[in-house]
Amino acid sequence: MTYTPDFGSVQPIDVLNLKSLEKRAEAVIGRGEFGYISEGSDDGYTKARNTTAFNDVQMLPRVLQNVENPDQSTKFLGSSLASPLMTAPIAGNTLAHSSGELGLARGAKEAGIMMAQSTFASKTIAETAQVSDGAPYMFQLYMPKDWGYCKYLLDEARNAHASAIILTADSTLGGYRELDVINHYHLKGKIANLAGYNTGESGAGAGSLFKESMQKLNLGLIDKLADYSGLPIFIKGIQTPADAAAAIDAGAAGIYVSNHGGRQLNGAPGSIETLPGIAKVVDHRVPIIFDGGVQRGTHVLKALALGADLVAVGRPFSYGLALGGWQGVKSVADHLKMEIYIAMQLTGCQTIADVKKMHVTYDFSR
Amino acid sequence: MTYTPDFGSVQPIDVLNLKSLEKRAEAVIGRGEFGYISEGSDDGYTKARNTTAFNDVQMLPRVLQNVENPDQSTKFLGSSLASPLMTAPIAGNTLAHSSGELGLARGAKEAGIMMAQSTFASKTIAETAQVSDGAPYMFQLYMPKDWGYCKYLLDEARNAHASAIILTADSTLGGYRELDVINHYHLKGKIANLAGYNTGESGAGAGSLFKESMQKLNLGLIDKLADYSGLPIFIKGIQTPADAAAAIDAGAAGIYVSNHGGRQLNGAPGSIETLPGIAKVVDHRVPIIFDGGVQRGTHVLKALALGADLVAVGRPFSYGLALGGWQGVKSVADHLKMEIYIAMQLTGCQTIADVKKMHVTYDFSR
Amino acid sequence: MTYTPDFGSVQPIDVLNLKSLEKRAEAVIGRGEFGYISEGSDDGYTKARNTTAFNDVQMLPRVLQNVENPDQSTKFLGSSLASPLMTAPIAGNTLAHSSGELGLARGAKEAGIMMAQSTFASKTIAETAQVSDGAPYMFQLYMPKDWGYCKYLLDEARNAHASAIILTADSTLGGYRELDVINHYHLKGKIANLAGYNTGESGAGAGSLFKESMQKLNLGLIDKLADYSGLPIFIKGIQTPADAAAAIDAGAAGIYVSNHGGRQLNGAPGSIETLPGIAKVVDHRVPIIFDGGVQRGTHVLKALALGADLVAVGRPFSYGLALGGWQGVKSVADHLKMEIYIAMQLTGCQTIADVKKMHVTYDFSR
Amino acid sequence: MTYTPDFGSVQPIDVLNLKSLEKRAEAVIGRGEFGYISEGSDDGYTKARNTTAFNDVQMLPRVLQNVENPDQSTKFLGSSLASPLMTAPIAGNTLAHSSGELGLARGAKEAGIMMAQSTFASKTIAETAQVSDGAPYMFQLYMPKDWGYCKYLLDEARNAHASAIILTADSTLGGYRELDVINHYHLKGKIANLAGYNTGESGAGAGSLFKESMQKLNLGLIDKLADYSGLPIFIKGIQTPADAAAAIDAGAAGIYVSNHGGRQLNGAPGSIETLPGIAKVVDHRVPIIFDGGVQRGTHVLKALALGADLVAVGRPFSYGLALGGWQGVKSVADHLKMEIYIAMQLTGCQTIADVKKMHVTYDFSR
Repeated sequence: MTYTPDFGSVQPIDVLNLKSLEKRAEAVIGRGEFGYISEGSDDGYTKARNTTAFNDVQMLPRVLQNVENPDQSTKFLGSSLASPLMTAPIAGNTLAHSSGELGLARGAKEAGIMMAQSTFASKTIAETAQVSDGAPYMFQLYMPKDWGYCKYLLDEARNAHASAIILTADSTLGGYRELDVINHYHLKGKIANLAGYNTGESGAGAGSLFKESMQKLNLGLIDKLADYSGLPIFIKGIQTPADAAAAIDAGAAGIYVSNHGGRQLNGAPGSIETLPGIAKVVDHRVPIIFDGGVQRGTHVLKALALGADLVAVGRPFSYGLALGGWQGVKSVADHLKMEIYIAMQLTGCQTIADVKKMHVTYDFSR
Repeated sequence: MTYTPDFGSVQPIDVLNLKSLEKRAEAVIGRGEFGYISEGSDDGYTKARNTTAFNDVQMLPRVLQNVENPDQSTKFLGSSLASPLMTAPIAGNTLAHSSGELGLARGAKEAGIMMAQSTFASKTIAETAQVSDGAPYMFQLYMPKDWGYCKYLLDEARNAHASAIILTADSTLGGYRELDVINHYHLKGKIANLAGYNTGESGAGAGSLFKESMQKLNLGLIDKLADYSGLPIFIKGIQTPADAAAAIDAGAAGIYVSNHGGRQLNGAPGSIETLPGIAKVVDHRVPIIFDGGVQRGTHVLKALALGADLVAVGRPFSYGLALGGWQGVKSVADHLKMEIYIAMQLTGCQTIADVKKMHVTYDFSR
Repeated sequence: MTYTPDFGSVQPIDVLNLKSLEKRAEAVIGRGEFGYISEGSDDGYTKARNTTAFNDVQMLPRVLQNVENPDQSTKFLGSSLASPLMTAPIAGNTLAHSSGELGLARGAKEAGIMMAQSTFASKTIAETAQVSDGAPYMFQLYMPKDWGYCKYLLDEARNAHASAIILTADSTLGGYRELDVINHYHLKGKIANLAGYNTGESGAGAGSLFKESMQKLNLGLIDKLADYSGLPIFIKGIQTPADAAAAIDAGAAGIYVSNHGGRQLNGAPGSIETLPGIAKVVDHRVPIIFDGGVQRGTHVLKALALGADLVAVGRPFSYGLALGGWQGVKSVADHLKMEIYIAMQLTGCQTIADVKKMHVTYDFSR
Repeated sequence: MTYTPDFGSVQPIDVLNLKSLEKRAEAVIGRGEFGYISEGSDDGYTKARNTTAFNDVQMLPRVLQNVENPDQSTKFLGSSLASPLMTAPIAGNTLAHSSGELGLARGAKEAGIMMAQSTFASKTIAETAQVSDGAPYMFQLYMPKDWGYCKYLLDEARNAHASAIILTADSTLGGYRELDVINHYHLKGKIANLAGYNTGESGAGAGSLFKESMQKLNLGLIDKLADYSGLPIFIKGIQTPADAAAAIDAGAAGIYVSNHGGRQLNGAPGSIETLPGIAKVVDHRVPIIFDGGVQRGTHVLKALALGADLVAVGRPFSYGLALGGWQGVKSVADHLKMEIYIAMQLTGCQTIADVKKMHVTYDFSR
């Protein structure tokens, strides 16, 4: 099935910094939609801590390291990336821009970074894959209760050349998000993949999302998903060394350290606080993806230095998408790459391998 | 003596979160009364720290734990509770709502949680017991100087099927509360139990409350109260491992960790800061009740993980009572249960026993 | 020489808390004078830290300790005090109220606490002594360059039945105080003692205070002052264990832990932060006076628990003096005694000896 | 080549404190220029932390140390200085005042402190040297790509009697400075030294500054620069013990601890946080210059006590220059000397050697 993707209205955007995009995006996104995208759960402690915790990580820069034109390209799961960045899997991107995942996919592709698509995307895997067209791509799975639907998703992901399946483990139900209550907001719009599976029937609305998802997640699913799909399985939502170890023992091909942008359990540490302990246990046996509060090139360097192999960014790409479609996404990625470039030069790192060896200090131990 | 309880005006209330109730309740309670209910002592450090200290406790959530529909029911002193929650014993609840303790008792009963009645309640033990009618119930004792009055209270509590007596040890006089000075506020209204003991005579006003209470509290009282009442004695106001150990050695059947909501001694740690050290000394020999600044389901989980068996909440239930009578109390409990439910699912806890084994980190050691 | 002391306009004052007096006093004291009294040096870090550091000291209250009507009376240098409090030696009290040190002396006497008079007082030692009249009294010495003048001061102090001489060691020149610069303020008014020594001639103004004082202070002075006066010598301004040890070895009869209310060196720790280390070195060989940021009864208890024998309060007494003359001073002392009384009862301390044994935790180690 | 230096409009200025100069200077400097001078990189964390970190260093003052008229004079590289201060090398000082480096040089000379001139100065080395005229002077080198130009700079520096060359190692490209983006500001004005090398042709604008500078800095340059110039080589921008050790091993004659005023890499520790570890490794083998956030005399003492031999101050001298030309520079230095004088007296330090032995505590370890 081929169709001509509609990227909607696009334009490159000026990016002063990632944080500044939020206010600008708020002006162009509906109030309920913006609340849903931006909020954390409960009183927002963990969401806020995700970013502030980076201030408690201190890079110790080296000088006279013979660095010129630092090279931030990297390899991840066999893909060559222009930068160790990924668009975090976010649901329902048409909330931000009519092009939804098509815009995200094209922006990521043009920027040379990894794109991850959510089960709850506004576009089907096939539609997105047509844009992505072989560029680095991963598929995020909210485990459905229906194994038939799950197999459909895995089949589609494999057809889309997904380099891995990301099984989200931290969202067996939704966090308590007060802005949605205040705004009387219920996630609208179809779940494209579910609609696709239902052979065109209108899929379930967002209100029933978790009814469609499975609660009783366990370690046994890893092998089941890997066996059916033949793809590497990453576990997303790991916040403890114990879970990282258990997941690898159970066959996980990668660890995704995340607290879901502070949208699920509140009262957990900032995501970066949990990374060093997890990286120690993982000990390079499998790759680590990290997300949580990243807003600066220096945040990316800190995460890499503390053990991440790939750093995902969520809301800022949604804001870029809202403001400029795929070109906005690319603008965000390009800005971040510029900040990474400067930070690598100024910390004395010629390559991403150098960044991973950089000495950082931190004030927490979890 | 049977009478038809008057529950006053009641309605279920929308609860965005427990903290948000304070402002709403302020609008319906008298200024002096609201000041008295809401305030801490001195400059309010300990009251504020009670809640902020929870941010220094970090839960480390587990994933893939096979959890579905987590079960927060628990047993406490032989009672089955729908959730490990208690309405903390608060004096004079008619300050908040005409139904006073009747509303609290019915709200707690309908929510399936423990109710604790204060010696300084606005309703007699017997009146409250008629509503409570066998539901989980404890009686809090401010030790009177008059042993005859004390015996009367213990008799009434036993008749009311109290599962235990909570002897408050941290209030041999009142903390210094500046809002009362500013508002020229003196606790008004009768002490129902004292009036009952006085065979209908108007009891002492709040101004003489501490004149009626005993100062010279000591460990020997525990046996005396237990012997007369035949009931387990909990000591409320424990903030040190040394006092917990001494109380158990002297016959206490339970420990109630509390700093009286920051209304008594100011300059003490946040209540949750003192819990781990006390739990270590108690070592499961007797049950532990905890209160202090609880406003979130995650706070409940943190307290349980640090050693509490039952978690009491004070002011928020008063505010719920003020806003909706017994239905407001139930609304508060239901909201908290909802938050607990989500937090259990997201931390990988199927049961309260799992919560108690959850790994948490904290930044204080007392 | 006898005269009738003029206490000026007096009235008891309502004291909500000590902190609240500052704003009220500002309204009745001249702008320059208020700036001079209230300010700290440089950017005020140490002055502010003096009070906030008390929040990092946590009392661990005991219960069931058989306490009733706690007794805060104490002995210091043979004097019986109603409370372990002292009016810190403050210069030029007529800046606050026409009665100056006469009001301070009478207020302290009526409250049963120690009074300390500054060398730079607005009233002579003899005038003050006539009011003090045998009540607990100490004399604070800014070491003059002129030994004759020094002998005169010591003679007068002995005649006034001073129980000790407090040699201030932290003020060989004045701290940098920006409010004085902003207000173009120069300490006005005569130095009464200097005028007295000059047989009635008008003494030097405040501008030349430090010209009259000696810079080259050293340990040898302790014996010299003790030999001439026959009085115990306390060293004021001790902030290190090393200086405490050296002073005792050189003959000091007492240690006065102080950073001069944050008016001298800025960038030093809060005064209470330095107390535990000093108390450890002093090891009860000599008594310890403490000042620095005390605004609460709980602050007094914390200082005693960390090693102080007597706790001095400065600015709040000046404000009380400004607002009510000697009766205002007494009102401040009475309020503080009330807060101490409550705090003793609630921490389970029957006596000051119990307070000194109370367990406190703190987050600093200097 | 002799000419009459034009010092422009000059006046001594009142300095309440160094921090207060910023607002006053903002009023007389162009918006873009002020942004460029004042800003830090990214979100300004490191710039702000440079100053706030001094609050985490606590001086423990000694008393009775026989101190009178403390002497802050010091020797550095054979030069006698009235105070251990230096004007940090700042680019393009005509942005602040028409006299540019001429004013800085004269102000420093009159104040008896070290002057450091930037490669990117608004005046040539020769012009500045004519004013400096043998007063303590260092030359800061941004390594040019062109070795001929580099030799020219070194020749000029030697002719100007520079006591050392400061090779800046932390700026192989510029930090990301958002105010310049917001203000659409590009550093204007000629690079005087480059113009001089180009025999009078108009030099490159600021936009191409880093095009003219070398990226691939390495340890081998130290010997090369030392061999050609015959001058001691300091490395500026050292933030780690490892780099300090490596630089000394490679022939560096001095270490300059700095994070470029927080204008380059953001997310690094406050500069003072890095000093103790570096000083330990340097172990007095070579002298240490320090800069970063110094605004108080006490900051200077803290830096000396933690291992610095010379303390540089940047922006405040630019603001003094803007407000009063060379006299403003001298006013700033004089104010700082006054604060240092008071702080030395009050910490019991007679000499700079005493300051270096002072006991300080700090809450960080990098």
